[in-house]
Amino acid sequence: MKKLISLCAAMLTVAVAWGAQCSMSSPHGTTRVIFDVVDGHPTYEVYFKGKQVIKPSTLGFEFNKVRASQSVSNFNNFRVNGPKDMMNGFEITKVDTTSFYETWKPVWGEESEIVNNYNEMAVTVTQTELKRYMIIRFRVYDEGVGFRYEFPQQPGLSYFVIKEEHTQFAMTGNHTAYWIPGDYDTQEYEYTRSRLSEVSSLFDKAWEPNSSQTQFSKSGVQTSLNIKTDDGIYLNLHEAALVDYSCMSLNVDEKNFILESWLTPDAQGNKGHMQTPCQSPWRTVMVTDDARDILKSRLILNLNEPCKIEDTSWIHPVKYMGVWWEMISDYGSWAYATGIPSVKLGETDYTNVKRNPHHSANTENVKRYLDFASAHGFDQLLVEGWNIGWEDWYGKSKEYVFDFQTPYPDFDIKYLNDYAHSKGMKLIMHHETSSSVMNYEHHMEDAYNLMNKYGYDAVKSGYVGDIIPRGEHHYGQLMINHYLNAVKKAADHHIMVNAHEAVRPTGLCRTWPNLIGNESARGTEYQAFGGTQPGHTAMLPFSRLQGGPMDYTPGIFEMDLSYAGNDSKVLSTICGQLALYVTFYSPLQMAADFPEHYEKHLDAFKFIEDVAVDWDKSLYLEAEPMEYITIARKAKGSDKWFLGNVAGMQAHDSKVKLDFLDKGRKYTATIYCDAKDADYKTNPQAYTITTKTVTSKTVLNLHSVAGGGYAVSLVPIN
Amino acid sequence: MKKLISLCAAMLTVAVAWGAQCSMSSPHGTTRVIFDVVDGHPTYEVYFKGKQVIKPSTLGFEFNKVRASQSVSNFNNFRVNGPKDMMNGFEITKVDTTSFYETWKPVWGEESEIVNNYNEMAVTVTQTELKRYMIIRFRVYDEGVGFRYEFPQQPGLSYFVIKEEHTQFAMTGNHTAYWIPGDYDTQEYEYTRSRLSEVSSLFDKAWEPNSSQTQFSKSGVQTSLNIKTDDGIYLNLHEAALVDYSCMSLNVDEKNFILESWLTPDAQGNKGHMQTPCQSPWRTVMVTDDARDILKSRLILNLNEPCKIEDTSWIHPVKYMGVWWEMISDYGSWAYATGIPSVKLGETDYTNVKRNPHHSANTENVKRYLDFASAHGFDQLLVEGWNIGWEDWYGKSKEYVFDFQTPYPDFDIKYLNDYAHSKGMKLIMHHETSSSVMNYEHHMEDAYNLMNKYGYDAVKSGYVGDIIPRGEHHYGQLMINHYLNAVKKAADHHIMVNAHEAVRPTGLCRTWPNLIGNESARGTEYQAFGGTQPGHTAMLPFSRLQGGPMDYTPGIFEMDLSYAGNDSKVLSTICGQLALYVTFYSPLQMAADFPEHYEKHLDAFKFIEDVAVDWDKSLYLEAEPMEYITIARKAKGSDKWFLGNVAGMQAHDSKVKLDFLDKGRKYTATIYCDAKDADYKTNPQAYTITTKTVTSKTVLNLHSVAGGGYAVSLVPIN
Repeated sequence: MKKLISLCAAMLTVAVAWGAQCSMSSPHGTTRVIFDVVDGHPTYEVYFKGKQVIKPSTLGFEFNKVRASQSVSNFNNFRVNGPKDMMNGFEITKVDTTSFYETWKPVWGEESEIVNNYNEMAVTVTQTELKRYMIIRFRVYDEGVGFRYEFPQQPGLSYFVIKEEHTQFAMTGNHTAYWIPGDYDTQEYEYTRSRLSEVSSLFDKAWEPNSSQTQFSKSGVQTSLNIKTDDGIYLNLHEAALVDYSCMSLNVDEKNFILESWLTPDAQGNKGHMQTPCQSPWRTVMVTDDARDILKSRLILNLNEPCKIEDTSWIHPVKYMGVWWEMISDYGSWAYATGIPSVKLGETDYTNVKRNPHHSANTENVKRYLDFASAHGFDQLLVEGWNIGWEDWYGKSKEYVFDFQTPYPDFDIKYLNDYAHSKGMKLIMHHETSSSVMNYEHHMEDAYNLMNKYGYDAVKSGYVGDIIPRGEHHYGQLMINHYLNAVKKAADHHIMVNAHEAVRPTGLCRTWPNLIGNESARGTEYQAFGGTQPGHTAMLPFSRLQGGPMDYTPGIFEMDLSYAGNDSKVLSTICGQLALYVTFYSPLQMAADFPEHYEKHLDAFKFIEDVAVDWDKSLYLEAEPMEYITIARKAKGSDKWFLGNVAGMQAHDSKVKLDFLDKGRKYTATIYCDAKDADYKTNPQAYTITTKTVTSKTVLNLHSVAGGGYAVSLVPIN
Repeated sequence: MKKLISLCAAMLTVAVAWGAQCSMSSPHGTTRVIFDVVDGHPTYEVYFKGKQVIKPSTLGFEFNKVRASQSVSNFNNFRVNGPKDMMNGFEITKVDTTSFYETWKPVWGEESEIVNNYNEMAVTVTQTELKRYMIIRFRVYDEGVGFRYEFPQQPGLSYFVIKEEHTQFAMTGNHTAYWIPGDYDTQEYEYTRSRLSEVSSLFDKAWEPNSSQTQFSKSGVQTSLNIKTDDGIYLNLHEAALVDYSCMSLNVDEKNFILESWLTPDAQGNKGHMQTPCQSPWRTVMVTDDARDILKSRLILNLNEPCKIEDTSWIHPVKYMGVWWEMISDYGSWAYATGIPSVKLGETDYTNVKRNPHHSANTENVKRYLDFASAHGFDQLLVEGWNIGWEDWYGKSKEYVFDFQTPYPDFDIKYLNDYAHSKGMKLIMHHETSSSVMNYEHHMEDAYNLMNKYGYDAVKSGYVGDIIPRGEHHYGQLMINHYLNAVKKAADHHIMVNAHEAVRPTGLCRTWPNLIGNESARGTEYQAFGGTQPGHTAMLPFSRLQGGPMDYTPGIFEMDLSYAGNDSKVLSTICGQLALYVTFYSPLQMAADFPEHYEKHLDAFKFIEDVAVDWDKSLYLEAEPMEYITIARKAKGSDKWFLGNVAGMQAHDSKVKLDFLDKGRKYTATIYCDAKDADYKTNPQAYTITTKTVTSKTVLNLHSVAGGGYAVSLVPIN
């Protein structure tokens, strides 16, 4: 990736009187941070356009005991008190400020060039009595603030164990929050919109069963957390660059409206094992009075390190289909064998079991998908259930659950890869780990080598169920390190990663752009597990997608799953599905339904065929969390535009000025709209497709039904 | 490995009346097991030569709750009660008996052919009310009994979580035990000899600090546990074939003299995650009235599965030296950099740090060792501290502590391997993991590939410090699986493994003979950490070595470590050190001291040069735990014999009849004896070397001082 630094940073070191307040405004002055030490406590507050949006909030850390070695003998050691807490007794001893402006080009993204422009204030706070200090670094953007704790190497602080991080976000009132329940193991929840004071009373209602879940507080919520004040200020709290640290949730003080960091513990209850020099992830506060700015913001990406992969030529966006919805919908099966109570890898003889006729990942079926997908211009095909072990893969706390190497007898791995290549496609590998992570680490290098051997260049990995090592959580430091280690090792093998059930992303795809997707939220699969209410897809771009692209797996055309004996209904319309290819940015887009379902609606399917997956430009035309999102995007290296809207529980009317089109140029607009009588529950497949010639002067009046949407392609004629 | 089955097993199925007692004697009738169900409890007792040695002892399991998936949805699940305990409510429903005799040839060992001869009784016990059963399989040998629990796959029992195994060993009195404190993380203790009733009162005295240790009961002890009755019966309790199960300790009921199994928990306190069909390891009870029979017994090996490596041609015994004692003695350093508080792999620039002049693993020093070792006929040279990360490797709970890939700047890995090969030697790789096991799993395949690249064929691995994943223990199921996985993956790469701080061996080297060594006890290094009392080396062959060879690292000639600024003294004599090459069987034998220390005593060093490391035959001439051991061994494929004795706290006189020598043949005996004035504390280097011609009629009168020993080589003249 090429980085263009347009303006070099100007460094200013300001010596301040001890205890003096200091502050920093954003480049255009919209956002301002004030920092102070109050009664020895580091404290910050945030203003937006002159108005306080974060009240004075304290910062600090509690530490736990650590084990330390004694130098007298190489091996004697004892458990000792760790360093004292870094909660109070501080003074400001130094303030460094700087300004930064750059533009950089992402390998893939919502736009081909990203501006990173902030003013920085790095405050050194010292516990004078302990002769110990840390730096709290603020980067102030026009759309918000990022700050982190930095612990330089120093005599009194080499290693420490975090008991808890105490970062407060003190709200100015009982705002409206759009939240999912705090959980150490899953984010696969629907959003609840409520006052901050109501979280604990609504918590149990918001809590739904999952394959692995651990609640820690009835007033706990997850990030990225969106908040709206009664006077129309939008806030978004999240974190950026979560590396070698545990994931942060927030706990709500429902009386004082203070949100406070709550880290994920390890199996022993510790929340971080730190070695200086080190830092926390960035804690981010986006703030705006226009919800579209949240979608437009690149604050999370900008707070991450530049790309660390030198040659990125092998990384590319992917539009794919998959042998997947068959199993999710209950139509097919991951498992090959039927009628056996359990399997043991290396012992179970698969040539001698009864084959489940519904085993989807069989050569013939995969070939059928490849034929359809290649005919319609797809890049890749995901195949799940190709490898042995699925008969009892889940919920058994089974350590040696998969080997990531051995295909089922009816899956001809060589033939199918060769066949895909002959059609100009690739298969996508699938590594479900069943959260048996020691086992995955043990097999990972061999697994990636197998991929290289057969010509796979992308893997979907999965972490369903409780983590082994037992007692660890999906969002603890050990797992955070694992996910990133898997991405780095994949990069060594020129493999792109799409990790499901992994931690919510925090912009690391800037640094490791082979991380082309994550799940880490309630995806389309829940439409087959009972359904997901409208509004969800108008929420995710504000929350989950802030950290990076989501493999949401859209494109379901057959909403009635009774063909699979499943009484769940997909609560969406066909046009609502089409819209997602525009409103959910991802370099990895799936057409998730069956070929035979698309064949019934090839006219609508055409939009999925046509839509781009990488962009030069994105315009956020309309947006309100849980209500509606309208986005226009220009395809990368092309003059085509695509437009999409999703509507929440209310129908939505748009008046879209096409003034973003090249002036004086004509375009063919193909408009995919919910039919007037479309209904996400009772009539989801009703749509209209109209074509007209438009220019930059055209205004389109477009309508989405509740739970529906629209999609438009704009192709230049001249 | 070639296996010779001389006599095929004869299978007898005996239908017995429900509740009837059943019994089985050993092939020559010395040992007898009686099994019964008493008040619903499975119960066994053991007799030796008609005398009860294990009183009726109950058998059974308590189970914990498990997580289970629900089939309604693919992802819904809940925590449910696991299967009910298997403690009582049993009836005998079937008894199968069989006899077995075979001889098999180990890849390496104390003898070239091993007899495996037992009578077997497999008792099916059924919880009739629950329609559930298990099999308790006894193998009765003349020198003892092995039994295990087998859980066949059955409707009521697919997955279960062990809360505790309740296997009792009820002693017939307040016997003398030779024990080390029960610990989930280390076996590196000195032995205490006491009455069973005294364990808890002596526990704290027996407990010494270690890099990772977890006691669980003041009356907890470890296996292999030796016990002696007042009427001269020797018992040895241990386990065989510890696979996918947690390691067993024993807890002593000091009033009733009942020892009971106590498994190692995982981070959540569970003691085993089981999937049927499965079994426990063998629980072993050796019993004899001649202590030598314990040393002679191959019961533990015989209870393990035959070799699973098809081509074993690359596995070979190794006599080696090492760049190791320099660091242990405090003379040298593992770490390259000095004056820096900590390192981060990938960030710390080693080319820009101050080099510790005492860094031992430097090219010049390693070359010096290679020159000496090759001149004296050694096979390999271990080099520790070759790779980056040693500056803060230990006691910091540091996950990314080593990469197992990157040499220090002063260690030329290619040159040194090439140089070693040019001298007919190989280097031994060192993988200290610092117990950061997720990290080791992540790098293992690459690490083994690096070994293959440079021509290493053996690795010493190490597990110093607390385990990461945190909360796991060295002897828990997860780690048991890890150690074996490392050995299996090594076999794929034709690499031999010598794992230190891993679980005590249980005979798995029969199945995986590339596991050529383990530490798993207090080795020679403790002579540099304060010393180890005489008696220890006369104990280990009865205890630790029962499960497999130990890398004890003998051969220290310079007992005064003041050259290293270390005031610890090696509590042994030079001849006491020489004896260990015979009395401690291992296919991996080290000469641990510095070349310059050997150069001062090249006449004594000659024995180390000459002694074999693989044997056709071993004769156990004299033995009493903690007191003395005298063994004669015939070198494999040679007519040379070697004889050795170690003495404990008392001097020892032997009258050794050389009637094992070929009749009518003359041999040159070279006798390395403690000098009369030798003393393990004050005069350890005093020895005599005499040479005489001997025959099978010769009787040698040999003397070892307390803490000393003797060694004799017997080389045929004609």
